[in-house]
Amino acid sequence: MLGKVALEEAFALPRFQEKTRWWAGMFATDVEKHVAEITDVDSLRLNFAERHGVGLQILSYTAPGVQDIWDPKDAQALAVEINDYIAGKVKKHPDRFAAFATLSMHDPHEAAQELRRCVTQHGFLGALVNDTQRAGPDGDEMIFYDNSKWDPFWQTCTELDVPLYLHPRNPTGTIYNKLWADRKWLIGPPLSFAQGVSLHVLGMVTNGVFDRHPGLQIILGHLGEHIPFDLWRINHWFEDRKKQLGLRETCRKTIRQYFAQNLWITTSGHFSTPTLHFCMAEVGADRILFSIDYPFETFADACDWFDAAELSETDRAKIGRENAKKLFKLGPYKDSSS
Amino acid sequence: MLGKVALEEAFALPRFQEKTRWWAGMFATDVEKHVAEITDVDSLRLNFAERHGVGLQILSYTAPGVQDIWDPKDAQALAVEINDYIAGKVKKHPDRFAAFATLSMHDPHEAAQELRRCVTQHGFLGALVNDTQRAGPDGDEMIFYDNSKWDPFWQTCTELDVPLYLHPRNPTGTIYNKLWADRKWLIGPPLSFAQGVSLHVLGMVTNGVFDRHPGLQIILGHLGEHIPFDLWRINHWFEDRKKQLGLRETCRKTIRQYFAQNLWITTSGHFSTPTLHFCMAEVGADRILFSIDYPFETFADACDWFDAAELSETDRAKIGRENAKKLFKLGPYKDSSS
Amino acid sequence: MLGKVALEEAFALPRFQEKTRWWAGMFATDVEKHVAEITDVDSLRLNFAERHGVGLQILSYTAPGVQDIWDPKDAQALAVEINDYIAGKVKKHPDRFAAFATLSMHDPHEAAQELRRCVTQHGFLGALVNDTQRAGPDGDEMIFYDNSKWDPFWQTCTELDVPLYLHPRNPTGTIYNKLWADRKWLIGPPLSFAQGVSLHVLGMVTNGVFDRHPGLQIILGHLGEHIPFDLWRINHWFEDRKKQLGLRETCRKTIRQYFAQNLWITTSGHFSTPTLHFCMAEVGADRILFSIDYPFETFADACDWFDAAELSETDRAKIGRENAKKLFKLGPYKDSSS
Amino acid sequence: MLGKVALEEAFALPRFQEKTRWWAGMFATDVEKHVAEITDVDSLRLNFAERHGVGLQILSYTAPGVQDIWDPKDAQALAVEINDYIAGKVKKHPDRFAAFATLSMHDPHEAAQELRRCVTQHGFLGALVNDTQRAGPDGDEMIFYDNSKWDPFWQTCTELDVPLYLHPRNPTGTIYNKLWADRKWLIGPPLSFAQGVSLHVLGMVTNGVFDRHPGLQIILGHLGEHIPFDLWRINHWFEDRKKQLGLRETCRKTIRQYFAQNLWITTSGHFSTPTLHFCMAEVGADRILFSIDYPFETFADACDWFDAAELSETDRAKIGRENAKKLFKLGPYKDSSS
Repeated sequence: MLGKVALEEAFALPRFQEKTRWWAGMFATDVEKHVAEITDVDSLRLNFAERHGVGLQILSYTAPGVQDIWDPKDAQALAVEINDYIAGKVKKHPDRFAAFATLSMHDPHEAAQELRRCVTQHGFLGALVNDTQRAGPDGDEMIFYDNSKWDPFWQTCTELDVPLYLHPRNPTGTIYNKLWADRKWLIGPPLSFAQGVSLHVLGMVTNGVFDRHPGLQIILGHLGEHIPFDLWRINHWFEDRKKQLGLRETCRKTIRQYFAQNLWITTSGHFSTPTLHFCMAEVGADRILFSIDYPFETFADACDWFDAAELSETDRAKIGRENAKKLFKLGPYKDSSS
Repeated sequence: MLGKVALEEAFALPRFQEKTRWWAGMFATDVEKHVAEITDVDSLRLNFAERHGVGLQILSYTAPGVQDIWDPKDAQALAVEINDYIAGKVKKHPDRFAAFATLSMHDPHEAAQELRRCVTQHGFLGALVNDTQRAGPDGDEMIFYDNSKWDPFWQTCTELDVPLYLHPRNPTGTIYNKLWADRKWLIGPPLSFAQGVSLHVLGMVTNGVFDRHPGLQIILGHLGEHIPFDLWRINHWFEDRKKQLGLRETCRKTIRQYFAQNLWITTSGHFSTPTLHFCMAEVGADRILFSIDYPFETFADACDWFDAAELSETDRAKIGRENAKKLFKLGPYKDSSS
Repeated sequence: MLGKVALEEAFALPRFQEKTRWWAGMFATDVEKHVAEITDVDSLRLNFAERHGVGLQILSYTAPGVQDIWDPKDAQALAVEINDYIAGKVKKHPDRFAAFATLSMHDPHEAAQELRRCVTQHGFLGALVNDTQRAGPDGDEMIFYDNSKWDPFWQTCTELDVPLYLHPRNPTGTIYNKLWADRKWLIGPPLSFAQGVSLHVLGMVTNGVFDRHPGLQIILGHLGEHIPFDLWRINHWFEDRKKQLGLRETCRKTIRQYFAQNLWITTSGHFSTPTLHFCMAEVGADRILFSIDYPFETFADACDWFDAAELSETDRAKIGRENAKKLFKLGPYKDSSS
Repeated sequence: MLGKVALEEAFALPRFQEKTRWWAGMFATDVEKHVAEITDVDSLRLNFAERHGVGLQILSYTAPGVQDIWDPKDAQALAVEINDYIAGKVKKHPDRFAAFATLSMHDPHEAAQELRRCVTQHGFLGALVNDTQRAGPDGDEMIFYDNSKWDPFWQTCTELDVPLYLHPRNPTGTIYNKLWADRKWLIGPPLSFAQGVSLHVLGMVTNGVFDRHPGLQIILGHLGEHIPFDLWRINHWFEDRKKQLGLRETCRKTIRQYFAQNLWITTSGHFSTPTLHFCMAEVGADRILFSIDYPFETFADACDWFDAAELSETDRAKIGRENAKKLFKLGPYKDSSS
């Protein structure tokens, strides 16, 4: 399928090449290949896209990125640097690339301001932030965005009418270090990523973020970070128990309504047709977006799977392209009307 | 369907009635009803079972139970008391009740010994333990059973040829208290339960417990605590990445093989036909067991759903009864051959 | 769910009450109840609709109806009578009822003309015809509409921009009588209905009707009369074999494309969630429409199932109401914007 | 996966090579390749099997075969010739091949006798017959086996404890010739095959064959010839309507029970994972058998799909091999215990 849109596609700043190499040692089977792919913007990924029918890539800074920097000033400076850097890259290929803003999430007002700058000045399509913001004097704390302190930020997202992609980051702090060190193979895609993001976004649901910002649009990768599997169970406990005990005060709609009105899921890193079909039944094809998770996953794995997956033509078009066009109000891009 | 076997069915000691009442205030919409149902053994639940076609109930002590007691001696004493108490109850209705041992999980040898006593002297069918054991001088620590220190215990399980049900418990410790207090509505069935158990059992997988104890059988409730949803993704990261980086040393089979050879999932608290069908595709009907999670769920909700769920007759019989008969080598019980 | 649209909802002329009674004896367990329900328009079905959240019923004449009349003049006269009768009924409840035209299918031009009259003068939303038209001097022949002789009729459908519901009718003729008499319990919903309609509509596909009339919209009941089950197999044989052997001349698109662009399926008489989910994966939720098949099925069976079926809110709204609004360009009706 | 068993695998007699060539012209894109593949036994298909992990092939004569011969004597003579021919081939590769008997279905007693001969003398594993037997002075009639006249034959099947594979054949007779000639692209796999077999086997169900022969085992190809799609609808009309009107006299169990106790489905020619998963939910993995439909389908298409299909390890083993071992009481064959 031509003209696919992909929206969890990472890059790293070239000046961090050494750090990127060290980081890649933890998960990549070919470190140098990974470093080359994530550092490159203009070349490798355009070729892959050409070969695999991806029309538009929405680029974002790799995790943990700015969310790993516990000094607020350093974090903000890096976010600005990243945004200006990728804005330049996007301008060179406006029909192939778009971008999500990178944000320091130490302060809601500062984050909102930088998002506004990126959207209005650079034409970015929203933001991608990595689960919690590392903070505290030793980087041992985590800032969540699911409380009322962050209302000004969510207010800005809805004013600008852009979505936010809530991307995973490993939890930080001494106790977590121990917890995950003892079962280190579960760090990242196998478990910790989904545990972090599902906690955070369901915290947004139950703490009333979507009731206070009904237009807010949040995107989750990896087919929804486990949540679709438990929609029945969550709905049952929310509606039949927790709302009677007080949840109703902050969370007036059903979990299925939040999924219909505020949440999106992407296929990034989860190329399973049965799981996609299950999500189509539970979440609906109108809220599912194709994505790759490059360069942690390959264009070939994602696109060969998606292009051949047993799907109706209508749903393939929606998930691959049409839903993204509507969500981001996209103009023409390469093969956008194939 | 008659003769169903249910295996996540909780009771509490009558002498803890006040504590049970206090505890129930956190989740029950009718506290007194809950206290009556969980404290009773001989009466209410036999009537419910009669009405809803449950032939055999495998009883277990309610969570967090002994896993909440951080003093090792107190924990062991309580476990013994519970086991002797329920053994007496089971003996009065041997064709309606069976039991899982309650174990203090402070020390592997002590846990193994009590399990052996329960199986050989009381005829218990295995054990049910609650995720991690609370420990430390202030109860701020958590003991996991997914490391080699616990090999003697797992060895005993396989020698006795009985399964262990790994049941949820909320994480403990100061940092967790804060984390979950800020999003309290997610405590329990909506999220924290599955996060704890999935971490623990996947820790057992990656830390080599099943490679060292290939006959070990672990049962997970709630249709597998999210894991079936991610089988493709876990398999992909284990096989294509992590095994090259060292996981192969402790974990030689695929995650799908562990699910085929060592893991079982039950329907407790997750009465969703699409999710059950998805699990049948990913895990297989031979490894799925009916359960209720009484009295946190009702017999009516579980049984009305299961008896009417769109299933082949063969799979309904397997999941409702036949798989349990094989796993526990059950003799005749009420309606066992209906 | 309020405001549902139902579109395979049958009535019979009161003057045929005796014939209706005789006919009902073949399939109804309560003949008098059936006669009352199918003969009534203004009363019983409005009450049922009120109670079960059906906002708009698109009424059509019961099968085999005019398709059973092998004399062309009689058939045409009856079609006109039926259309004028139901037009009067619809006018009394314009926010609760709409209608499909009944057509004699002996002659394409005559059928086209009557359709045009019904749409332009009575405001009908399309037509419902029953599989093949009985014909021949003894009623032993069957007229199919899947050949080029019928192009003028299909041309009129697309000009008027209205869909045609292809409803089942039992095959007729001596040989069929014997074939089905020997296995009479399979007549109707269990098998013969789907065999007839699937043959007819796939004949339209392969004989080029949709290639010659790319805007034509055909609706199939009963979740697609078996065809979705075999989409993979049909596609495989069409694309990998038959097109090389000549099928390409009349049938240039894939079967999945015809389902995306020309075909719709309804839930009439097939209230199975797994089958609905399967159709959502294979056909897509955008092409599925709620329907009952009253009074052969009950409002309660259809609506209780649909309202509680495990579905995303978005897909429930689409299938229950929104897809029909778009297809028929509906204005406001009772609860249409609930 | 090694050691797969395949059971809808066709051969033709070398002496009919010209007829085979003419026949192949109707569906094969490479006629000579097809003729070579279906005429060969010892060479090509053993190589394919080796390459694709098929351990045992149960060979059967290609359709329409003996069922196309309306002279009873000729039909019987050909059946005997075929059986003796393939018995010789099987004896040369007993660990790679087995066979289904070919039967003339003009007379139940003769068919029973030849089946008995093949099973007891040649060690055949059952029979494969092609839907209806062509009969009558001009070959214009069709013999069905779903009436009591055939009880002696079904009695012999159950006595010998061997299953019968009910394979498709196109309907015959003047009226059918016209019907299908007008929509010729639907002949065979796209539609006519499934219409014939589903009518026949559901005729067996409703005419009481399985009630009179509760041990009888019938195998259907192509994932069940559409029937699993309609299990809910068939069950609803049988249980809620037709049994009250008299069906109960011949058909006492539910359609789901016949599928659990008497029917099997194979994957032949239907390599669709969503459809397989749907069948696993509706029919159950214990009643599904891998098959190819060689040489109408390729080993590569069937095996590449099946080996990679998203399935639990247990179900892949069952469907690929273990179910067949049980059904046919197979001894060791190539890779049978891999």
